[in-house]
Amino acid sequence: MDNRRNFIKKVVAVGALASAGVSLPATAIFAAPQKSKTSLNLSFQEGIAPGKSLNEKLDYMEKLGVVGFEPGGGGLAKRVNEIRQALKGRNIKVSAICAGFSGWLIAEDPEKRKQCIESSKEILAAGSELGSVGMILVPGFNGQQPSLQMPKAREILLEQLKELADYAQKLNTSVILEPLNRGEAWFLRLLADAAAMCKEINSPGLTCLGDFWHMTHEETSDRGAFISAGKYLSHTHIASRKRRSMPGEDGEADNYIDGFKGLKEIGYQGYVSFECGCQGKREETVPAAVKLLREQWKKA
Amino acid sequence: MDNRRNFIKKVVAVGALASAGVSLPATAIFAAPQKSKTSLNLSFQEGIAPGKSLNEKLDYMEKLGVVGFEPGGGGLAKRVNEIRQALKGRNIKVSAICAGFSGWLIAEDPEKRKQCIESSKEILAAGSELGSVGMILVPGFNGQQPSLQMPKAREILLEQLKELADYAQKLNTSVILEPLNRGEAWFLRLLADAAAMCKEINSPGLTCLGDFWHMTHEETSDRGAFISAGKYLSHTHIASRKRRSMPGEDGEADNYIDGFKGLKEIGYQGYVSFECGCQGKREETVPAAVKLLREQWKKA
Repeated sequence: MDNRRNFIKKVVAVGALASAGVSLPATAIFAAPQKSKTSLNLSFQEGIAPGKSLNEKLDYMEKLGVVGFEPGGGGLAKRVNEIRQALKGRNIKVSAICAGFSGWLIAEDPEKRKQCIESSKEILAAGSELGSVGMILVPGFNGQQPSLQMPKAREILLEQLKELADYAQKLNTSVILEPLNRGEAWFLRLLADAAAMCKEINSPGLTCLGDFWHMTHEETSDRGAFISAGKYLSHTHIASRKRRSMPGEDGEADNYIDGFKGLKEIGYQGYVSFECGCQGKREETVPAAVKLLREQWKKA
Repeated sequence: MDNRRNFIKKVVAVGALASAGVSLPATAIFAAPQKSKTSLNLSFQEGIAPGKSLNEKLDYMEKLGVVGFEPGGGGLAKRVNEIRQALKGRNIKVSAICAGFSGWLIAEDPEKRKQCIESSKEILAAGSELGSVGMILVPGFNGQQPSLQMPKAREILLEQLKELADYAQKLNTSVILEPLNRGEAWFLRLLADAAAMCKEINSPGLTCLGDFWHMTHEETSDRGAFISAGKYLSHTHIASRKRRSMPGEDGEADNYIDGFKGLKEIGYQGYVSFECGCQGKREETVPAAVKLLREQWKKA
């Protein structure tokens, strides 16, 4: 994961310049795509690998060559030492932090918005200690009501994202906007939309995520979506495309080649992280999924 | 414009199969991209070329090698013969029909929605007589209130688009969804979003449009947006990128190469049509714009 380290280093260096009042063009703030350096950096959420303890899971991941670990954000501050210890000496780094905040940013109730900002800051701080690329954030789920309507929702959201991005940038991490499918969140469904928010805020403290599961339902083109996300894309989620299970468990439907082409085209330096359930036995489906993705990455 | 004619012929043939109850995969309904056949087919709206009459304008366009004419939809039924006569013997065909309907499809008031459907059908019929690829439609401008909110707005919209697409398909034409910038319409701003609606309706009677002017403000990547629009893209608008004037009048900002690359990649068979104002003298800015776009198309 030297690539990600380089990315972080660039963010740090640029952040230092920016806080010294040096004005930089947008192109300088984000790492330039370097097509030749793109590689498939696999990451697992905590529930993916078989194993009774975190250490058993990490052992399993290491044997498979999985180089990223994506913990949940809930209670993360209390787990920083545990995770650090577990990762010590391993070729696995923390990738992104999956949500865990409370409240939501497009809530009508300012208290709920404040809750979201405060809890997000705590998680960002813990994630930063773990070297995470960022904390995944959903501006509002369908069930979170009452929410603001467009265009007010977007206006209020961007004000808050600016605050969170400034905070995250100082910690060398980022807020990662995640578009979901309409079943979960009508408010933000497309990578182009999330990327447009990142463009407006124009800070390495705000990035976005592409999740193949949600993209299956919302995007017309995986490749087009990733090209639109471009330099703002810092993380990717993957699952099977019919039941959100282990990649490969849905057979022919589990084709990620077009999306992988897009990732290669934008010189993607981040992780492709498993966020999915499992139909079969993990001891079989997990290695099969890793094998499938490596084959498809080569073909892309 | 043989390419467009072939596209229309395919639509007719497939339409006949579909109405005979033959089930077709989505890939068969739309013409497959044929990269080698893509060319820059320029089109003008009625106000673009200098000239006192339609015939003077068409003479001017013909000299410049402009092969498409995009009339407004308002009162089009009464102009079918006039336009047919004016185009007779010329190497210019009607490209798309620009709006002209009344009411809007995401109106809270069902009467306003009905008005939009009925007036759109009249324009689609007239456009079909003129061999148009379709009628450009905006689901709702910001100023059109009260409008339905998401997700109800999208649900009601898609029901109506299905009806209009069925109607258009039988006439070998289409409804062309146009995403606008937020200043005009928050409801539909991204090509990926318009394309997703086309994918859901899955009929050659519903297509979408990319307008470089709006895309300048909303998309992070012209190329990514056009790749997402893919086979659903039937028309393209162009203007200078700072003041919506003649391409080239905004200097360095007027770079369309990335977007043109996208159009070439998807094997685009439609027109690139001027919808813009003019700062300088038309006799100078119009030929300069045509020259600029041809140069940039070659570079793409």
